[in-house]
Amino acid sequence: MKRRTASFAITVLIGLALLSTVAHAQDPLPSWNDGKAKQTIVAFVAKVTKEGAPDFVPPAERIAVFDNDGTLWPEQPMYFQLLFALDRVKVLAPQHPEWQDKEPFASLLKGDVKGALAGGERALAEILMATHAGMSTEEFAKIVQDWVATAKHPVTKRSYTEMVYQPMLEVLAYLRANGFKTFIVSAGGIEFMRPWAEKVYGVPPEQVVGSSIKTRFEWRDGQPVLMRLPELNFIDEKAGKPVGINEHIGRRPIAAFGNSDGDLEMLQWTTAGKGARLALLVHHTDAEREWAYDRTSAIGRLDKALDETQARGWTVVSMKDDWKRIFPFGAK
Amino acid sequence: MKRRTASFAITVLIGLALLSTVAHAQDPLPSWNDGKAKQTIVAFVAKVTKEGAPDFVPPAERIAVFDNDGTLWPEQPMYFQLLFALDRVKVLAPQHPEWQDKEPFASLLKGDVKGALAGGERALAEILMATHAGMSTEEFAKIVQDWVATAKHPVTKRSYTEMVYQPMLEVLAYLRANGFKTFIVSAGGIEFMRPWAEKVYGVPPEQVVGSSIKTRFEWRDGQPVLMRLPELNFIDEKAGKPVGINEHIGRRPIAAFGNSDGDLEMLQWTTAGKGARLALLVHHTDAEREWAYDRTSAIGRLDKALDETQARGWTVVSMKDDWKRIFPFGAK
Repeated sequence: MKRRTASFAITVLIGLALLSTVAHAQDPLPSWNDGKAKQTIVAFVAKVTKEGAPDFVPPAERIAVFDNDGTLWPEQPMYFQLLFALDRVKVLAPQHPEWQDKEPFASLLKGDVKGALAGGERALAEILMATHAGMSTEEFAKIVQDWVATAKHPVTKRSYTEMVYQPMLEVLAYLRANGFKTFIVSAGGIEFMRPWAEKVYGVPPEQVVGSSIKTRFEWRDGQPVLMRLPELNFIDEKAGKPVGINEHIGRRPIAAFGNSDGDLEMLQWTTAGKGARLALLVHHTDAEREWAYDRTSAIGRLDKALDETQARGWTVVSMKDDWKRIFPFGAK
Repeated sequence: MKRRTASFAITVLIGLALLSTVAHAQDPLPSWNDGKAKQTIVAFVAKVTKEGAPDFVPPAERIAVFDNDGTLWPEQPMYFQLLFALDRVKVLAPQHPEWQDKEPFASLLKGDVKGALAGGERALAEILMATHAGMSTEEFAKIVQDWVATAKHPVTKRSYTEMVYQPMLEVLAYLRANGFKTFIVSAGGIEFMRPWAEKVYGVPPEQVVGSSIKTRFEWRDGQPVLMRLPELNFIDEKAGKPVGINEHIGRRPIAAFGNSDGDLEMLQWTTAGKGARLALLVHHTDAEREWAYDRTSAIGRLDKALDETQARGWTVVSMKDDWKRIFPFGAK
């Protein structure tokens, strides 16, 4: 009799464990509030993965593309890669005494970022080339890794790679668990993202698409190296995103995630394909837990793309309303 | 008693089936003669996949790159993509009456390929741009697919995609079965290879690296398209191959397969990494079953790379001696 009770108890426990597993499987996006955005993502995944269904997509064609800045991690108070470049200017300054009197470096070294960037695109390009070119690809990867390991965000004082959106990490994992290949397609530097994207997002280097400068194969001390040249190769932004997607992936994505007008053409390109498509825009609406900005922001402007959303049936995610939490480390 | 005999027979049958599986697993390269080349490939795969061993490489880093022309399929009497271009000139000629008096087209349309190509790189570029640009990426993919489905090789009269090297198909499959990601890295057009590479080689579009022309995002009849422009974007040849590998893959391969001096830098780049590396050159030594050429050939010249082979310990595959068969369709 006792044995029977024990056996019954075990059965119940196993049953509960199974139920819990099922419940977990039914909520692959625990940081998302139940709402239209979450439902749209889940319904899309269900219909493209159901064999025999009209919207079924074979695994090889389940390509999902994600913008990075503002979509997977923040872009305020300025793009993190620019913060990296500014840090690098300070580190490199002793080797460049001429920077003390030369803009945009002189302003930067006095702590006047706004003054330095007043020089517009030319000033920005000078800062980027001075900090991103002139070394081998391996040396640059090491510089980025070291920076990522030590640098802190000016507002949150957290590591940049801690400041990734927990709900989007769940989407990445959820899609991969359903046979998707996830790619980053960002205006950010391809070589700036690769050193940490695999660890932080689970996206391997060969699935990162981004802007790039040219490299050249050379011999140095008897070893072949790829030297990074101060010359633009490709800008993976706006109409460049479909071009970059085609060049790197070679097939049209079925799902695209962005947050700004820089992602508009990527979403247009993705949704113009036949069959079920998912297009999602992260809307920065949470001034308390993150930042709130859209149509008039200098960084990550979301204006034209927001206008197209309704006509095209794209999904807008309100960070404030749709996300239970923003970052992995807590409420804010 | 009878039941016991039947049971014994079944056990024996299962045992034999298992043995056969093991035997098959022990010869993953049935079209290769037992020799140094085959042994080198098998030993390399064994040591990088053995967990805990000093040369173990995690699956994510098992990147193998393959040249295409002369390595996975032939390149004689000329590159197959050039044969495609010549076919396209004939198809397009009615829309271009001016070609009747304009080189290199005039010679081509008279059947004088040599005369047409006497114009050198400029003539070649004109032929390529006239046949590869001016349409959308999707239209071009369709043109390539249709050509591949119908065109026949001038010597073998076989479809081009039938003329792939059976021993190399086995290497591709063997590496993938051992956790490798296989990439094509070819001087051929990236968009020329992608429409058939997955079906023929098992290499998906996102794992094809090649030469390219520029594309532009445009709207046509209310649909976004990528138009192919008559402007070079990238040449994935010689010192360009490590550049293309870095741009597309973002990590150094541990195995590289080529056949000509165009692959030299790719092999150098691959083998300069730390840990176990495999570099293999297919040597065209079989005039009877394929073609025989090396140091003085205008197409697929293998000269400098052959010189480096001994000093660097690379593996040379003699098609004549190392391969039991060349093509999937028979002895020749």
